Amino acid sequence: MNTTFLKACRGEPTDYTPVWMMRQAGRYLPEYHTVRSRYSFLDMCKTPEAATEVTLQPVDLIGVDAAILFSDILVVPEAMGAALEFVENRGPVLPEPVRDQAGVDRLIVPDPEDKLGYVMAAIRMLRRELVNKVPLIGFAGAPFTNATYMIEGGSSKNFFLTKKMMYTEPDLYGRLMDKITETTILYLKAQAEAGAQALQIFDSWAGALAPCDYAEFALPYVKRIIAALKEGGVEVPLIYFANNGATLLDQCRTVGADVLGLDWRINLDDAARIVGPGIALQGNLDPCALLLPAEKMEPRVARILEQGKAAHGHIFNLGHGILPEIPPEQAKLMVEMVHRLSRKN
Amino acid sequence: MNTTFLKACRGEPTDYTPVWMMRQAGRYLPEYHTVRSRYSFLDMCKTPEAATEVTLQPVDLIGVDAAILFSDILVVPEAMGAALEFVENRGPVLPEPVRDQAGVDRLIVPDPEDKLGYVMAAIRMLRRELVNKVPLIGFAGAPFTNATYMIEGGSSKNFFLTKKMMYTEPDLYGRLMDKITETTILYLKAQAEAGAQALQIFDSWAGALAPCDYAEFALPYVKRIIAALKEGGVEVPLIYFANNGATLLDQCRTVGADVLGLDWRINLDDAARIVGPGIALQGNLDPCALLLPAEKMEPRVARILEQGKAAHGHIFNLGHGILPEIPPEQAKLMVEMVHRLSRKN
Repeated sequence: MNTTFLKACRGEPTDYTPVWMMRQAGRYLPEYHTVRSRYSFLDMCKTPEAATEVTLQPVDLIGVDAAILFSDILVVPEAMGAALEFVENRGPVLPEPVRDQAGVDRLIVPDPEDKLGYVMAAIRMLRRELVNKVPLIGFAGAPFTNATYMIEGGSSKNFFLTKKMMYTEPDLYGRLMDKITETTILYLKAQAEAGAQALQIFDSWAGALAPCDYAEFALPYVKRIIAALKEGGVEVPLIYFANNGATLLDQCRTVGADVLGLDWRINLDDAARIVGPGIALQGNLDPCALLLPAEKMEPRVARILEQGKAAHGHIFNLGHGILPEIPPEQAKLMVEMVHRLSRKN
Repeated sequence: MNTTFLKACRGEPTDYTPVWMMRQAGRYLPEYHTVRSRYSFLDMCKTPEAATEVTLQPVDLIGVDAAILFSDILVVPEAMGAALEFVENRGPVLPEPVRDQAGVDRLIVPDPEDKLGYVMAAIRMLRRELVNKVPLIGFAGAPFTNATYMIEGGSSKNFFLTKKMMYTEPDLYGRLMDKITETTILYLKAQAEAGAQALQIFDSWAGALAPCDYAEFALPYVKRIIAALKEGGVEVPLIYFANNGATLLDQCRTVGADVLGLDWRINLDDAARIVGPGIALQGNLDPCALLLPAEKMEPRVARILEQGKAAHGHIFNLGHGILPEIPPEQAKLMVEMVHRLSRKN
């Protein structure tokens, strides 16, 4: 079993820098499309055999040091009772957005084995398949990020309706966030119990918030999740990724995570200085930089590895999900480069 | 004539903190819709009487300390020969994107009085109307931002094609940027000569770039524009706004601008520390925070004013354009609040 990723999460010495990619089980792989052609996106999430198959693909094809469960953060809102559709070329749509007290009241805090049992089934299946291979990462969306989808009814440009609720109906917003938070605690705990060996919390839209709003309307809920998991006996490394969150890092360092994920907008050594000791960093190559020819990709990967030395543990990753347009061989090239260059050092 | 804005740009003492809002001549005003109903968006930009009328509206209705010319950054690509359409509810579309050498060759570096004369006509008309009122700001897009529209053919989520050209055809990218840069120098110079009393360069998508890419592919061109303007005798204050650019600020400070604009993601005092002496700051209320009830808006405005004291001159603004959904009376409330609170201090 390759434990390099888990060691790096804990800040322990490793022989080389481990690497995985957000969305590594995804549309850039022809093998993914083969499976996908048999299911809708949501059905694929809900079919443990399919989720398992695509989760394993990048481990074998690309050589990453960790597998991340194929799923979507929005299975949580759906399990809470929010209708969810994935519309081709448009992304997620929640046709009954949550915008008032009645909407919040309708939501449940589900038993994860009941409403999200397919995720735990996939995790158990994956652990059997991954024996002697790499660790398995489970995940969930952060409450703020999930709330934006539930309030806006899908993706958003300005998060106007979310901020409107925050600013003009803070109590209503708080009750919605409480329900999402409780659900997420139970869900991540169930993932760990099913066998997930690390857990990542994706705060994809945290970067839309001013520092003062992040402090009031987003961070406390993530803190509560992490505290509840640690107090509840979850011992696997916890990773928190606040996308576009460079100016929130001084707050993120207090969240209780073992690892903080970073997008490509900040240099890793600057981030390490802000975050301070005891927290590992994960990141942060621009996903588009996988287009670079090898001779130009190498100095860029080398620079990130060099900057990563300032951190208490570094897991190489992209700064965002890998894009469907990236040739798989370029991803493989990057993974080999990370391994080779970090070993040499 | 209210010169508070111009004094703050130069870091001179003012009786109160001046304030204006990006997109202040825009869709949140019913009076704007009245004019807009008679023209298409692009025709309104090209009709000096219409552009003048809507530019003046927020000066009288909202009480801002500066007028900014009603126009669009994409009139520059269009003047260079790129076809441009504004599609209702979809935004700008450039149906013939620039993606190869032939595409770059087809672009011209136009004489601004020839191809963009309507802008200079509006500026001259506005200066007559604004006598004894407030200063007039002219503007242009930064080369990187305009290049993204020209390469992608419109707005973009990941700027994949732009980065692809940067990474795989850097010479082609450079030739495109050179042409945009030359055009922008002539255009801004012509605006100053026509009477613009300050010039803002909008780098709306700079925040999509990693610091190393910004240094190589965006910043040098803005530097060239500002140097050419200053060497060419343009003496009006120059404002540079790199949106979502908190991690680029240490580079932005070297661009040569008198003022740096900031979005709401960074605290002004943190920005002032990075930027250092001699540069004024402009910003940075979250546009959605205009939804706050007065008693909650006030402490937030007060905090920004307090943080702004750390800067060598502060111009209050939103961190991005005002949104169409904002009630005009809320904008007016904010402007009065800025004036009242900063006078008291």
